[in-house]
Formats: sequence, C-alpha cells, structure tokens
Amino acid sequence: MNNQQEHFLGVDVGGTHLKIGKVSLQGEIVSFDKEDTTSYREDPKGFNACFVEVIGKYLKKYPDIQKVGIGLPGLINKERTTTLEIPAIPALDGFNLKAALLEQYPDKSFCLENDASAAAMGEYKFASSKPSPNFLFITMGTGIGSAAVIDGEIFKGARGNAMEMGHMLSRGNARLETLVGRNGILNILERMVNAYPEKIGRLRDQELGTHLLVDTAREGNEVSLLTFEEVGDILGEAIVSTIRILDINEVYFGGGISAGLEFMMPALEKTVRQYLTRYYTQEVQLQKATLGNNAGTLGAAALCF
Amino acid sequence: MNNQQEHFLGVDVGGTHLKIGKVSLQGEIVSFDKEDTTSYREDPKGFNACFVEVIGKYLKKYPDIQKVGIGLPGLINKERTTTLEIPAIPALDGFNLKAALLEQYPDKSFCLENDASAAAMGEYKFASSKPSPNFLFITMGTGIGSAAVIDGEIFKGARGNAMEMGHMLSRGNARLETLVGRNGILNILERMVNAYPEKIGRLRDQELGTHLLVDTAREGNEVSLLTFEEVGDILGEAIVSTIRILDINEVYFGGGISAGLEFMMPALEKTVRQYLTRYYTQEVQLQKATLGNNAGTLGAAALCF
Repeated sequence: MNNQQEHFLGVDVGGTHLKIGKVSLQGEIVSFDKEDTTSYREDPKGFNACFVEVIGKYLKKYPDIQKVGIGLPGLINKERTTTLEIPAIPALDGFNLKAALLEQYPDKSFCLENDASAAAMGEYKFASSKPSPNFLFITMGTGIGSAAVIDGEIFKGARGNAMEMGHMLSRGNARLETLVGRNGILNILERMVNAYPEKIGRLRDQELGTHLLVDTAREGNEVSLLTFEEVGDILGEAIVSTIRILDINEVYFGGGISAGLEFMMPALEKTVRQYLTRYYTQEVQLQKATLGNNAGTLGAAALCF
Repeated sequence: MNNQQEHFLGVDVGGTHLKIGKVSLQGEIVSFDKEDTTSYREDPKGFNACFVEVIGKYLKKYPDIQKVGIGLPGLINKERTTTLEIPAIPALDGFNLKAALLEQYPDKSFCLENDASAAAMGEYKFASSKPSPNFLFITMGTGIGSAAVIDGEIFKGARGNAMEMGHMLSRGNARLETLVGRNGILNILERMVNAYPEKIGRLRDQELGTHLLVDTAREGNEVSLLTFEEVGDILGEAIVSTIRILDINEVYFGGGISAGLEFMMPALEKTVRQYLTRYYTQEVQLQKATLGNNAGTLGAAALCF
C-alpha cells in the first residue's frame, strides 16, 4: 500500500457518544460516524465490553486500518494503558482499556490519550497554522480543557496527567473553570446585564447563551464586550502563571467559546504583557486553533503517528 | 583514581559572593571558600572575565577536579551555555559563560543551571530523605525560588526556564513572591500585629524579622501563628495550581523561612486537600528539604553527575 494513502481511526470519547473518523495522513476525515453509548450503561455486558466491541465494528468496516487513536475525557495512567478517573463515564475508572482492546484485536495497535492532549496533537500534526513544537492548547467549552506540547510531545508531567488548567485556583480561590467555563461566562454576562441595564440592547429579555454573547459582541454590544473583557482578564492571569511554570509562550485557543476570542484578546494580551518580562513577551503568540469541531476526531487519529 | 574518591567543584553564584565547595560523590563538602565578587563590577577586565578567572584559581587549587557545576540566580538558555537574564548581575545577561570557561580550561567540563534547579538536584542526589524521581522544590527566602525534578531530570519547560512559581499570580493578581517572599511575610506579620495588639506578646516594640517570627511561633505566639497560617494558605493555593499543571505531588521546602514550615503546615495541608481530588491527595507529600545552608553549593556540585 502506498504509505501516503494510509488511514487511521480516530475515536473521540464523550459522555454519551463516540465520534469515530477514518482519517488520512493529511488530516482529512474520509468517513465519519457517531455512536450513541447511553445504552451501554444498562447493558448486562457492562459499558466497557460494549465499548471494546464497537471498536471492533469499525475495524471490520475498515479492514485497511492498523492504528486506532482514542481520546478520553479524564485522567489516565502515565503508561497510557488504564483509564483512572473519567467523570463522565465512571465505569471506565481503573479499566485497562488497552489490554482489553489488544486481547480482542491483537494485530492492531491502540494509542490512548486525554482528549485535550489529543486535540493538541491534532493541531500540531494537521493545523494549517503549523504550530511550533512547543505550545499551550486551551479549549473553552462547557469546561476548560488544556494541554501542552513540549519538544513535539504531549507533556505528561510527573504522573501522567499534567495540564489541568481548568482546576487552577484563580480569583478568590475559585477554580478557573468555575469562573470562565460556559456557566461562569454566563454568570459574568448576567452580572453585567444587571449592572448596565441601559446598555444591554438586544440582550433584553433574551435567554442568555454563549452564541448570543458572541453574536452581540460582534454587533458591538457594550455589555457583551465587557463580559469578554473580564473573561480575557481572568484567563490571562491563569496563562501568565502557566507560562511562568512551563516557559511556553505560544498559545492556541479552541472550543466553542473561542469563537469570541477576538473580543477577549485585548484584555488577554494586556494581562499577559503586564505581568511578564521581556524574555517572555518578545515572542509570545496568542491565537485561535484551527481544527474546530473536528479537533476531537482528528486529534485522536493524530495519536497514531 | 578510585571512583568513590572523585570530587566535584560546586559554585553557587550570588549577587555579591560566590560560594565554592569541593564536594565528594557522597555529598560531603571537603573544602569550602567564599569569594567576594563586588570588586569585579568595577574591574576594567569586566565582571565576566574576573568570574572566569576565579574559577581557574580553584581548578589550580584542586588539580584532581574535572567537573564544575555552577548555579546561577536567573534565566539561562535551554542548552545551558548562555546566561540570559541574571537580575543580580546584569553583566552576565546574554553571556556565553560555558564557551568562555571552555576556552580557558578546555580539559575540564562545566554544567550550568538555575540555582533553584541546582538546589533541587542537590536534594535529589544527596538528601537523606531520598526524594523520588518526581518532586517539586520550593525555596523560601528573600524571594520564592522553585524547581521541579521530573523523571529524575530538571524540568526545563518549553524554552529552558520553567518553574518561576514566585511570579505566579495569586490573590488580587499579586505575584506570589510579593505576597510570601520575606517582605511579604513581614507585611502579613505587621498587619496581624496591628489587628491583634492584645495578642502580640513579646513581638511588642521589636523590629519584626523572620527569625523572630519563627522563634515566637515556636513559643506559641498567636499572632505569629496566624501569620504562618496565612502564608500557608497563599502558598497552598499556588501549590494546588502547580500540582494541576505538573501532576507532581511530592513537595520539598527549603530556604531560611522553611524553618517555620511546621507552623505553615496545617494551613498548607488543608488548602491542598481542599482543592484537589483523591487522585492527587492520596499520595501527596509535603516536607522539609534537608540540605539547609549547603543546598546551593551541594546542588551546583550535583549538576556534575
């Protein structure tokens, strides 16, 4: 087989679904499926056996595929064989997934990784922006996910689960994720709406949501812009601390709320430049990740390289 | 020569002095000197030439020594050849120290490192407490220094200068070092003295200093204990964030103010356990570093192994 035509299976594991993509070496998703996993929880075989089984379904569907990458929403061991704490799927806690997969499919190879780290690898391998071998990756969605690529490899830290920036302590000892995860951002927006009733424009009597926040910010709504300013400040502080710990100064932002990155950026940049010396700021880069909704599947596939 | 009798030169570079020790493989300082470097700044040859020259003096004094370790108070490049930002000795900024040393002494070898990282290596190689290959090291003195050993090696981060915990942002966006460096601690003490005049005991009308703080805490002085409690809280928060980023949960504390570690410990432990999940806390260890005043010299020598 021509090596350029090799394909990989990327499996993005969520709380209720698997996203499964057949991905080319160039980062093209040539085939995509979504599997609902909610029934696995009640299945007498147990979630884990069902999960292993469904992987087999796709290995059969794509017999040319030798390598499978799996992105998992939680903590895994440093050897990347056993899932430790997967809050969205407790059945996976402490399960040697790699051994179970290899037992069923001994002629295939499997790479397990935390989902944010997988997404960072996707960005590293496939992004048109060509990240350098050292960058910080932050996904802003329901929660805050993060990962670091150092010297071209996922930074695992001492025990395997580095880069839980969402749980760093920020203002008043709140977790970063509490402050600027989806709900945190909507709390800030609500506070701003109440503080500046005369400036809310078409936010009046609407159900506040992040899409509306981004849309109104784009229209120049002052309350929405103030909200993003505060988010940028808070996120910027956490980034400053992380830069001081990792000496990494190229940062990519992904996830749904990164659609509003341009509105956070002035506060983000100001905070970063205010608290860092020239050694750090002269080459600092803050920019949007490029893979969008495909980051999970592409990232999982990128683990195979 | 019997390998067990090999010796190394450890050079701890400070703002005004060099501490130079001939150190055995077992971590014994068999000979120690202190060199005043203040005159180098006015010397027509320049600080850097004087510094290179004085190393030669000790290589002549100890002709059996082949390897020299040098601990530097600031930022150096990732290749560990060139000093980048050394606030205490600006003449060293951007100086290829390793090349200059090798030019003068081509048959010797030289290892350069940040001083906190060197002290961590000293702890790793020589401490009776036998640290594991993964630990965080925090020195509490005039400033807050820190380092991490990951998989048995100094963690350099993306660009070479990881672990500037003293510049992480803490409460109200102050730098950690501003809050709990020496002056920060004395500010807390002064605030406590003013808040609880009835409890200050023999702190009354004394010049506040860290030795007095430790001594009075040992006597049970409530104001001194409250001061250490607040220091423990603030330091604990920064440690929680660092553990989340590095997934490292063995922590050693050195430096002068670590003499009061036992008084910070209840607040420190409480904060760490409050904000971390079981995955982190089940094996967390917070303890005192063991090398004391010799950490700098021994750490520099430990770079040679």
